[in-house]
Amino acid sequence: MQAVGRAFGHNFTLEYGDVGGISIDRHGTPLTDGVRELATSADAVLFGAVGGPKWDDPSAPTRPEDGLLALRAHLNVFANIRPVKVYPELTDSSVLKPHVLEGVDMVVVRELTGGLYYAQPKGRTQTPQGIVGVDTMRYSESEIERVLRVGFELARGRRGKLTSVDKANVLETSRLWRATATRLADEYPDVELEHALVDACAMQIVLRPASYDVIVAENTFGDILTDEAAILAASMGLLPSASLSGTPGFYEPIHGTAPDIAGQGIANPCGSILSAAMMLRYSLGLTEEAAAVDRAVQTVLEQGYRTADIATAGDAATGTTQMGDLV
Amino acid sequence: MQAVGRAFGHNFTLEYGDVGGISIDRHGTPLTDGVRELATSADAVLFGAVGGPKWDDPSAPTRPEDGLLALRAHLNVFANIRPVKVYPELTDSSVLKPHVLEGVDMVVVRELTGGLYYAQPKGRTQTPQGIVGVDTMRYSESEIERVLRVGFELARGRRGKLTSVDKANVLETSRLWRATATRLADEYPDVELEHALVDACAMQIVLRPASYDVIVAENTFGDILTDEAAILAASMGLLPSASLSGTPGFYEPIHGTAPDIAGQGIANPCGSILSAAMMLRYSLGLTEEAAAVDRAVQTVLEQGYRTADIATAGDAATGTTQMGDLV
Ligand SMILES: CC(C)[C@H](C(=O)O)[C@@H](O)C(=O)O
Ligand SMILES: CC(C)[C@H](C(=O)O)[C@@H](O)C(=O)O
Repeated sequence: MQAVGRAFGHNFTLEYGDVGGISIDRHGTPLTDGVRELATSADAVLFGAVGGPKWDDPSAPTRPEDGLLALRAHLNVFANIRPVKVYPELTDSSVLKPHVLEGVDMVVVRELTGGLYYAQPKGRTQTPQGIVGVDTMRYSESEIERVLRVGFELARGRRGKLTSVDKANVLETSRLWRATATRLADEYPDVELEHALVDACAMQIVLRPASYDVIVAENTFGDILTDEAAILAASMGLLPSASLSGTPGFYEPIHGTAPDIAGQGIANPCGSILSAAMMLRYSLGLTEEAAAVDRAVQTVLEQGYRTADIATAGDAATGTTQMGDLV
Repeated sequence: MQAVGRAFGHNFTLEYGDVGGISIDRHGTPLTDGVRELATSADAVLFGAVGGPKWDDPSAPTRPEDGLLALRAHLNVFANIRPVKVYPELTDSSVLKPHVLEGVDMVVVRELTGGLYYAQPKGRTQTPQGIVGVDTMRYSESEIERVLRVGFELARGRRGKLTSVDKANVLETSRLWRATATRLADEYPDVELEHALVDACAMQIVLRPASYDVIVAENTFGDILTDEAAILAASMGLLPSASLSGTPGFYEPIHGTAPDIAGQGIANPCGSILSAAMMLRYSLGLTEEAAAVDRAVQTVLEQGYRTADIATAGDAATGTTQMGDLV
């Protein structure tokens, strides 16, 4: 952000807040009221990532992820937009044959504030037959409608195709999801609506990725499908996301904390950098600046710099800091 | 089965029952009591597939899939075993680069009679705020334990590695799942237990498939991951499954009805044929016969015969009946 400020003559005010493990360690809770207010009063929130083995005890009363989930819910950012871009330079690093990646350009809209992540009842109880765990998948028609509309609108401005993902042959929430998508389709005659079962989609998204334009899925399905779609981009470390429709917008790379490589200085910073670009574009209205950041990442990749996650056998890997400086 | 009978001198008694759409059309219900009893009294059940656009109306009182789910629950086949085998002959048909497929040999154990598929409450209700849909993910410790044990036992007889899949950073059922896996690991010191988050696993299963031996996952996660894993086998049409631990065993290909190609005579029969091989092995104790069927499929593929789903541009595709006859 400071580099963008210098290049374009802006003065960004950056404020920092602890969320997750660091907040548990310092303040006993993964999200303090202070940070919650800080986020609410900002023009936009750029988020890192949370979680790690230190806080993984299944019997812990709270954990880092609770801070992230609380913040998403608090900001009401129900539409999490995850574009999947394929850099032709990275074809060598991909597990997929080059022809599969030709023409891939999709955006996944993941519902972010509902479903199994939030609905009650949710918990573990001791019963005479042993412990029983429960999570609830609940969606109201209006929750489904608002996120589907984000998908329809996006599709309208792109190639005009919307794939609505569900498991309508088994789940009641999915039947409601499918009926709602079908109903809304009448309002968007310029968009071609296709329904896909989540299991079939998990196969097709890698087999025929170029056939997708915009995909909309509920929270858990979207979580799984977007991690999977990272296969197309060669590395999850490259993928940004924007969570919109609440104010302020919320921006985070789709990757997690990668505890296995913590402290080694080898993580890919591009997912975060590109999330900042989405923030410039969607929350700050700085389109030119956003495009410059996107181009900078593109150029550094064209020049052959590769962090470890996207390096092929022959490459010398570039570290996190150097990659950031280069961009 | 008749070919195996002729070759090995067995006399199999085959009985046929309608389940799914055909049963709705003929009997008004996707599973009649008669078929339920037929299944219970058999030594094993070989299942086709259910579902199709004709019965897809979201407001229908029942649908083909309900018949399948009722039969699985009735037979109490809680462990659905889905081996993922890579035929080196099919590397050309794969979207993956050959090195990714080297050494791939995994089995997914999917919990089949619990979770979102079955638990109550489940339904759609009209509220003052509009329709609300609910599905419930519920697991008792004993349901989790029995399916994990199937995974531990399988791993013990294979490469000794078990990957337990969950979403323990968000779901209470997953925390119970993870704690149960960790507890059981003490009883299987010869098995290396690894926990994987379902989203990360959906990425790794294609990026590093050779690193998996046995994967155990709850119903919905297993449904998604096994369709995805079909990418490794070049086609879902090749993959069999065995659902065990109830009596009789229940065998079905992992593919669905593929309504888009219905009646064209181009479907791949191998998933069903290999399911029959699993039935010979696990329910009928006919190991030699099972191996002969596996070998027959292998040989036909080695000889270059390809159904449309695994044909590459240059191949003339073999039809369903001819492929079956060749095997
Ligand atoms: C860390 C975790 C709670 C989170 C999620 O499941 O939403 C992550 O996997 C993601 O995709 O943003
Ligand atoms: C047809 C459907 C109900 C079924 C399931 O979800 O179990 C299928 O997808 C499968 O994987 O066997």
